[in-house]
Amino acid sequence: MENSQKETARIEAFSDGVFAIAITLLALELPFPHIEHIKGNAVLTKAFFDNWPAYLAFVLSFLSILIMWINHHALFNHIHKTSSGIMFANGFMLLLVAAVPYPTSLIAEYFNTPAENSAVAVYAGLFILINVAYNWLWYTASRKKQYLKPDVTPGTIHTIRKIYLLGFPPYVLSFVVAFFSAGLSLAICTLLWIYWAVVIRKYNH
Amino acid sequence: MENSQKETARIEAFSDGVFAIAITLLALELPFPHIEHIKGNAVLTKAFFDNWPAYLAFVLSFLSILIMWINHHALFNHIHKTSSGIMFANGFMLLLVAAVPYPTSLIAEYFNTPAENSAVAVYAGLFILINVAYNWLWYTASRKKQYLKPDVTPGTIHTIRKIYLLGFPPYVLSFVVAFFSAGLSLAICTLLWIYWAVVIRKYNH
Amino acid sequence: MENSQKETARIEAFSDGVFAIAITLLALELPFPHIEHIKGNAVLTKAFFDNWPAYLAFVLSFLSILIMWINHHALFNHIHKTSSGIMFANGFMLLLVAAVPYPTSLIAEYFNTPAENSAVAVYAGLFILINVAYNWLWYTASRKKQYLKPDVTPGTIHTIRKIYLLGFPPYVLSFVVAFFSAGLSLAICTLLWIYWAVVIRKYNH
Amino acid sequence: MENSQKETARIEAFSDGVFAIAITLLALELPFPHIEHIKGNAVLTKAFFDNWPAYLAFVLSFLSILIMWINHHALFNHIHKTSSGIMFANGFMLLLVAAVPYPTSLIAEYFNTPAENSAVAVYAGLFILINVAYNWLWYTASRKKQYLKPDVTPGTIHTIRKIYLLGFPPYVLSFVVAFFSAGLSLAICTLLWIYWAVVIRKYNH
Repeated sequence: MENSQKETARIEAFSDGVFAIAITLLALELPFPHIEHIKGNAVLTKAFFDNWPAYLAFVLSFLSILIMWINHHALFNHIHKTSSGIMFANGFMLLLVAAVPYPTSLIAEYFNTPAENSAVAVYAGLFILINVAYNWLWYTASRKKQYLKPDVTPGTIHTIRKIYLLGFPPYVLSFVVAFFSAGLSLAICTLLWIYWAVVIRKYNH
Repeated sequence: MENSQKETARIEAFSDGVFAIAITLLALELPFPHIEHIKGNAVLTKAFFDNWPAYLAFVLSFLSILIMWINHHALFNHIHKTSSGIMFANGFMLLLVAAVPYPTSLIAEYFNTPAENSAVAVYAGLFILINVAYNWLWYTASRKKQYLKPDVTPGTIHTIRKIYLLGFPPYVLSFVVAFFSAGLSLAICTLLWIYWAVVIRKYNH
Repeated sequence: MENSQKETARIEAFSDGVFAIAITLLALELPFPHIEHIKGNAVLTKAFFDNWPAYLAFVLSFLSILIMWINHHALFNHIHKTSSGIMFANGFMLLLVAAVPYPTSLIAEYFNTPAENSAVAVYAGLFILINVAYNWLWYTASRKKQYLKPDVTPGTIHTIRKIYLLGFPPYVLSFVVAFFSAGLSLAICTLLWIYWAVVIRKYNH
Repeated sequence: MENSQKETARIEAFSDGVFAIAITLLALELPFPHIEHIKGNAVLTKAFFDNWPAYLAFVLSFLSILIMWINHHALFNHIHKTSSGIMFANGFMLLLVAAVPYPTSLIAEYFNTPAENSAVAVYAGLFILINVAYNWLWYTASRKKQYLKPDVTPGTIHTIRKIYLLGFPPYVLSFVVAFFSAGLSLAICTLLWIYWAVVIRKYNH
């Protein structure tokens, strides 16, 4: 029992590392405003502000990874013991977390251009997969009583399961909407971020 | 109570990760001196030394993140328990820490060129936001007694609050000065770094 | 004795850091689909899907580093005390782990082109070295009784040694096959990933 | 007293993070062999092997950071309590560790070209500074008895001081030699790496 708690500590520390690195790497993808040196402040200032979709994408993705990290800890607060199934579900989730900087840079480059719908669709598509990963992780962990801490009630298990399932349809909606309006699709993603920040209070302690 | 202490440990470890990654990534932004291979040592040596604004920016940003990290620990030494408010204020601060390499590379590229004022203004502007984040974090944490450790006196609360508020006007000054003299603006930032290194002794233990 | 346990904790934490960073950096190597902004969604979507070898390489390398991390922990669960030999064997392994993103980006760029055989051969060659590193690490650690925890039986030592030795020939095979069929070579690497995921249960607890 | 031990744990964890990130980032600087896709395996294989100075630089820098990390731990095993002076000396050292990937990529690009002397001189110059940082760190920590653990004898203090001072002249030599023979200069750096790996046994436990 002591051993399995240590194992949870390790998987959490490793996951924290991936979260911390992915969230910090986001800034590396900010496109650098290249201008000729001879051109002065006005040109650089304009180039800097023309990058606004990149800053928007950076902030949105940063907040998304942050809330995913908070959610991850809230889930693992209920998990007592790891299993192969939990490790693979968690590994799949980390793979998706590590991938977030990629569609973020797609939005940074193509938002507000004729190719913005594809870029936002890839972004929303990744978040559908992330939602699937969270559903899978909690489903695997809550399937057997021995994986959970003794004080986790069936009510809590059910509440968390419902919260994650309810997140699935809006992400699909945001994916579909992306093909018609890139801006509206990102707005749905932002609203969902607020959803996670609110519901987390229901099962975090 | 034991649980909330663990929660502080996690938020600190995650923040430490972001600080450590952001500070190390700074070196990735150092511009590489590209010369034709056939050209010899003299050309490469010149190209290397022509990069001096980049090394200056690297050292300044490295020291800034280092002192921010020391400050962060000094603050959390007084915090006993996290809340949603503290987590969001801390998240906002980490977002800004992760962003430091970006204006640093602006300075590396445009300092000593006609566009240097814009570049340094962006840099100083980020540090205004960082100062706001620290004020916000401490304001949120010190608002309720239950968030702080029992031995934190109203005097300490007030001292820290004053220290952070006093940092705000000089950063605004450094931002305004940037439009007239990029060098003077950076000098103010450096002096402020010394300010933080000195005042930290007042509330760190 | 307490001191040496602390030393194991440190080498494990440092190794975890390298694993977490290497696994997250993989995403940085994903090639960005550059198209002219004026070209619309269809062109970007095509460019995105044309990158499929990069996504395949990303997923395969991510899973490889993940299973290597799980293996690393399973090994260190049996190690009680570090020595210079263990630290050098472990350092050699970390060097190879840190190098994984490099051949991964070779595959991302050259798979499905006339240069795919060389790219996959480099990839498979790295995994031969990684297998050698694991064999070396376990050989060094299991050579003296005092390095292992008291409950490690000669049977366990032998089982682990056999498991790692058995991995060597298929990696060599995958290297040789790479020169004839890049796809088949990657398929062997994938099958080996499943091999490690299965055998790990034999000595992980 | 318990508090100051915690402070040592934090500075060590933060330093470990910087070491782990810097050592893993080295691989990011490996130059990618760009060839036209239509050209086949022979051209890619040649381009891959033509990168040999980059692999050499990667391995040498990886081993250097690794031995520096081992040294760092060996030093902190003797330190009981941090002070402002220790934190600044340590911060200076971390700045230099974070900078290692930069001259490494200079060597990767310019070794075996007419500009190799400058590139290796920058590399050797950084290691002179790193040696200074270690001397400074140990001098600051060993100056007052209260910073060290009670079991550290004056003999140990003196031995460590001598070991670090003895490292200074050969690094200066390697810097001077760089201007005449880049290869010989790197060979001295490699020999010094072996020196550190051997002497570490004298004060590590």
